Amino acid sequence: KRPRDYGIRFGVLPVGPLNAITDVPGVRVGQVTLQQGQNIRTGVTAIVPHEGNLFQQKCPAAIYIGNGFGKLTGYSQVEELGTLETPIVLTNTLSVPTAAEALIDYTLGQRGNEQVRSVNSVVGETNDGTLNDIRGRHVTRQHVLDALRQAKPGPVDEGNIGAGTGTVCFGFKGGIGTASRKLPASLGGYTVGALVQTNFGGALQISGVPIGVELGRYSFKEGLDGSCMMVVLTDAPLDARNLKRLAKRAFMGLAQTGGIASNGSGDYVIAVSTAYRIPHETTSAFDEVKLLRNDNVSPLFMAAIEATEEAIINSLFAAQTMTGDQGHKIDELPVEKVVDLLRKAGQAK
Amino acid sequence: KRPRDYGIRFGVLPVGPLNAITDVPGVRVGQVTLQQGQNIRTGVTAIVPHEGNLFQQKCPAAIYIGNGFGKLTGYSQVEELGTLETPIVLTNTLSVPTAAEALIDYTLGQRGNEQVRSVNSVVGETNDGTLNDIRGRHVTRQHVLDALRQAKPGPVDEGNIGAGTGTVCFGFKGGIGTASRKLPASLGGYTVGALVQTNFGGALQISGVPIGVELGRYSFKEGLDGSCMMVVLTDAPLDARNLKRLAKRAFMGLAQTGGIASNGSGDYVIAVSTAYRIPHETTSAFDEVKLLRNDNVSPLFMAAIEATEEAIINSLFAAQTMTGDQGHKIDELPVEKVVDLLRKAGQAK
Amino acid sequence: KRPRDYGIRFGVLPVGPLNAITDVPGVRVGQVTLQQGQNIRTGVTAIVPHEGNLFQQKCPAAIYIGNGFGKLTGYSQVEELGTLETPIVLTNTLSVPTAAEALIDYTLGQRGNEQVRSVNSVVGETNDGTLNDIRGRHVTRQHVLDALRQAKPGPVDEGNIGAGTGTVCFGFKGGIGTASRKLPASLGGYTVGALVQTNFGGALQISGVPIGVELGRYSFKEGLDGSCMMVVLTDAPLDARNLKRLAKRAFMGLAQTGGIASNGSGDYVIAVSTAYRIPHETTSAFDEVKLLRNDNVSPLFMAAIEATEEAIINSLFAAQTMTGDQGHKIDELPVEKVVDLLRKAGQAK
Amino acid sequence: KRPRDYGIRFGVLPVGPLNAITDVPGVRVGQVTLQQGQNIRTGVTAIVPHEGNLFQQKCPAAIYIGNGFGKLTGYSQVEELGTLETPIVLTNTLSVPTAAEALIDYTLGQRGNEQVRSVNSVVGETNDGTLNDIRGRHVTRQHVLDALRQAKPGPVDEGNIGAGTGTVCFGFKGGIGTASRKLPASLGGYTVGALVQTNFGGALQISGVPIGVELGRYSFKEGLDGSCMMVVLTDAPLDARNLKRLAKRAFMGLAQTGGIASNGSGDYVIAVSTAYRIPHETTSAFDEVKLLRNDNVSPLFMAAIEATEEAIINSLFAAQTMTGDQGHKIDELPVEKVVDLLRKAGQAK
Repeated sequence: KRPRDYGIRFGVLPVGPLNAITDVPGVRVGQVTLQQGQNIRTGVTAIVPHEGNLFQQKCPAAIYIGNGFGKLTGYSQVEELGTLETPIVLTNTLSVPTAAEALIDYTLGQRGNEQVRSVNSVVGETNDGTLNDIRGRHVTRQHVLDALRQAKPGPVDEGNIGAGTGTVCFGFKGGIGTASRKLPASLGGYTVGALVQTNFGGALQISGVPIGVELGRYSFKEGLDGSCMMVVLTDAPLDARNLKRLAKRAFMGLAQTGGIASNGSGDYVIAVSTAYRIPHETTSAFDEVKLLRNDNVSPLFMAAIEATEEAIINSLFAAQTMTGDQGHKIDELPVEKVVDLLRKAGQAK
Repeated sequence: KRPRDYGIRFGVLPVGPLNAITDVPGVRVGQVTLQQGQNIRTGVTAIVPHEGNLFQQKCPAAIYIGNGFGKLTGYSQVEELGTLETPIVLTNTLSVPTAAEALIDYTLGQRGNEQVRSVNSVVGETNDGTLNDIRGRHVTRQHVLDALRQAKPGPVDEGNIGAGTGTVCFGFKGGIGTASRKLPASLGGYTVGALVQTNFGGALQISGVPIGVELGRYSFKEGLDGSCMMVVLTDAPLDARNLKRLAKRAFMGLAQTGGIASNGSGDYVIAVSTAYRIPHETTSAFDEVKLLRNDNVSPLFMAAIEATEEAIINSLFAAQTMTGDQGHKIDELPVEKVVDLLRKAGQAK
Repeated sequence: KRPRDYGIRFGVLPVGPLNAITDVPGVRVGQVTLQQGQNIRTGVTAIVPHEGNLFQQKCPAAIYIGNGFGKLTGYSQVEELGTLETPIVLTNTLSVPTAAEALIDYTLGQRGNEQVRSVNSVVGETNDGTLNDIRGRHVTRQHVLDALRQAKPGPVDEGNIGAGTGTVCFGFKGGIGTASRKLPASLGGYTVGALVQTNFGGALQISGVPIGVELGRYSFKEGLDGSCMMVVLTDAPLDARNLKRLAKRAFMGLAQTGGIASNGSGDYVIAVSTAYRIPHETTSAFDEVKLLRNDNVSPLFMAAIEATEEAIINSLFAAQTMTGDQGHKIDELPVEKVVDLLRKAGQAK
Repeated sequence: KRPRDYGIRFGVLPVGPLNAITDVPGVRVGQVTLQQGQNIRTGVTAIVPHEGNLFQQKCPAAIYIGNGFGKLTGYSQVEELGTLETPIVLTNTLSVPTAAEALIDYTLGQRGNEQVRSVNSVVGETNDGTLNDIRGRHVTRQHVLDALRQAKPGPVDEGNIGAGTGTVCFGFKGGIGTASRKLPASLGGYTVGALVQTNFGGALQISGVPIGVELGRYSFKEGLDGSCMMVVLTDAPLDARNLKRLAKRAFMGLAQTGGIASNGSGDYVIAVSTAYRIPHETTSAFDEVKLLRNDNVSPLFMAAIEATEEAIINSLFAAQTMTGDQGHKIDELPVEKVVDLLRKAGQAK
């Protein structure tokens, strides 16, 4: 059961049908989970913005760096050109080069890309080194290609899966989470979807209730640290400038959960619009675009905050207790107890 | 009564003795309030980091731009050089030049500054144009100089005062608020103080309780917009790089209150350390500094988040219903009702 | 005579008819010069991008900070929203607030702006404190309004005029300079115009010839320092992202003259497109724009580099020896000697 | 023969003994060249800042993005933390992941790093796809490890070597180049060294002489495009903020050569100080540092400009005509003709 099934609400905007990033039309997610033996607890999550050849039909995109202690790759080209030309892949810290290499394989190998000689792989990560033998670098290019190939629309698995297999969040088992918002027609009717890989610390709040304090687990009482990768997709017609602003709001959603973006955190948001394409090559000298005006982006901002907050909490509700490398054991969030606390606060049914 | 007097808590860290920015040793605040006739509802709030000649003995500083739809002046020099050389002045949007001019007057007129020919005035603002005849530009240089002259340590008045005289926050009367955190000795023992000028929208949360929703007032149900100026002072020895990171956490504190940094928002954080000085002139070619290591800044980050969140809520508790320009009336937060809601959620006594 | 009249060439692209920023259709420049008594040597230069109400019909714009030791105001809003809503005013360092105030006067006073309560004044400066009694702050709001009112198309006066009245460049008298490039039709046919206020140091090069070395005047042989304000206008349809890139190239033009952007320099470039307008209010939720593709901006980059380089040298050729505050005397560039040196190097006729 | 051997001068500051990045004490360079068959023309250049364990004893560092159309990896962590923890590796565009992976191998394998689970590989690149079968990705991890292992002080080979094996610059054969400046004692006595991988376009100038025009080869006359990686090392005690400023000046050195940072360019500067170390772990909560004051950095700025300009030209003088992939042939710079042109301009002996 997801938090909404307990009557927990995050913010005020309506959710999309799946309450998932895949509510944004055309978006697909693929995940490969590596859970082997005593010590391999890692994986790959791929987000594919549209069904076509993304290199040839790029999406407007931006990246916001919340806290830059991370290894995300692909930042500067997205910033400079305002476009995304590969799917987004999430994995563990030390497997970023493998994933970047696999995105090159993927792109070079696509029909129509025979002349491509430059690929800006976008790969994010968090460090699953508590549960996973991260130094073993068990993710292979094939795992990444499999995640890309398996990407599909529809519901997205959450918790101990894909790039979230071995992550830890607020001292509990973290993982992959997703959520969405669908604006009412009066506010444009756009969808905003978030997908997160949760691996960070602070003082957990759920729907505002100070769960971390109630359960006695929060930063500086114990050592909680780490990172959060956030991916935001929308079908609203935004250019890179407004996508960067949207990305920043996802970081505000992280703040809503009690995250503090500690020194050791690699907190990044990749925001992408599927509303239009920037062709790699074209006979026209111009891109003709119909962009949502600055005046109309604020509801999208609120949607990004809410969807990110909910996606993070969804990851915690879905994740399950795990034992991994060197016998480290991370407990899942005690959901029943948490829901009780939320009920007492009037925040769950 | 401030929120803490109702047993409301924000986060987990201990507060300073005054729960005010002036808990940072040496910091002084001066405020001039302009509440005249039917239509003048504005003022000036000045934050003076230390007692000496600030131009000659600069403080390390940084500015974070949360959302840049604002008129803050002084940004680029602080960024480039990493230092603050004037006090920080807050006022209304259209009075920024007047305040900047006054800071030049103030600096040129100080003993020891007879040869100074360049002054980087740092002035922030929010737009009080609903309650205040802002086009009348009623703030004068003398008002600013008075605020600077009257700056004093000790408790800081909150609510409808100084630069917060005419501001509106979450649809209620906003104003000036302040709070602080004092880290335990094991985390360094440093103090972080925040002072805010609240004039923004979103969906108000207090200590996590969705007050905006409960009271039926939140963005996009009605038109809430606007800005928040945040000033963070600390006695921790941080350089400009880590102060910028600290400043960003104050913006996370804004997120904690339900702020969304809407398109029309001018959300800025100015962060300053009083731990050491950068002399304007010296015979040495070097600055010898003892800086807190990156590894040790995270508790300060949490402190900045908490103090900013609390400062914002403090501003709302202190502000009182006001009628102003064109008969506009803005109600104060219904504190008793709010405290009742918090009690039901277990968040007030 | 301007450098081109001596056969001096800067780069490879063709110049516009006036070789001035006003070659960009609709752009007007107004200048007020304050040269009074022994010690007043300053002024105002205003650049007005189009003939309409700029607040209501904003231009896409961006600002690049080359070196931020300066007092430019208006940065963050241009960055956040990607638009310019006031004319650009240049003046001296300590008169920035006066000019910002005047731009508020100007904007509030325009027909159609009766309800405007927020104005983002864009004002740049350099420090003319060697020749000018800068502490006296002799520029008034009226001077600024006069510059705006007198703004006109056509040739632009260069040298000791307007905001360049009292500036010093490479140890010689600096001032206002302007130049332009008109791309051939095969490269789009667009015009790029630059206007500069030159007040900086380094080792002067003219058309690549090391004049500073030849004349024995360059940084660290003697103390040369200071700033350069650069304004770039174009009729190419660029959005804020590509305008920021264009702005950065103007800074490369400064490098071409031997400028080093020393620590004390306030080097900023404001880039504006006149190709389309962003209305302040409109019934549409969208801005429909036809933007030059990334692939086609490089010739504009080269144009901005060349025009800025030439504008700087034009300012030096036009400026005349001046005596000012405290009897300081700054010699003009010895043009005949310089042209001789250029002839020997094959760079002048 | 290097340009200096022809009496060509770049700027005014004295050069170091080797006129190479290795003039900065402790800096080592290692290069592996892949020139095989008809189509492999690529390689690796590694710059190692000091002899110790760089992960455990990090260097202050910063990265400036001139134009971000490139795949440099490691940006955000350097920015956030202000430190470099791996050597810098340069290679071709599609081999960045391989090199990043190799830097992880290198770091994990060093004695003392047995517990390291996070490595921020810093890898830069340019695209050698004209001469090299870049899609073949012929660089292996072993090649990178070899370059690191072979890194040595002393003279640095230039031209068709290492990461410069297959690059093209201003339409001529480019490659690796290096140069240095040693400030006089009166300006601090510090050394600044630059190493570049040249692969870009524009209108070539050498010591100010418009060689590109004279030889009839320049951008938009023909299609010249591409990137430049620049690495700047210094023994001056700068923190990350001033290193970022220093890095920006290297980009000004690129401008001095006639580079235009075209749309397709990935122009990055990595600046590192060897003056002090930031230990990865230590018992102290503080870093005690003695930093050069802002007031004293300008000579270093000039040194970075000059050294970068000279390093670029050095790469062109050293590079030799090459035939590669698909029979593409790139001619070397016609050095004798160029020197003649420089002599006529009085810029060579």
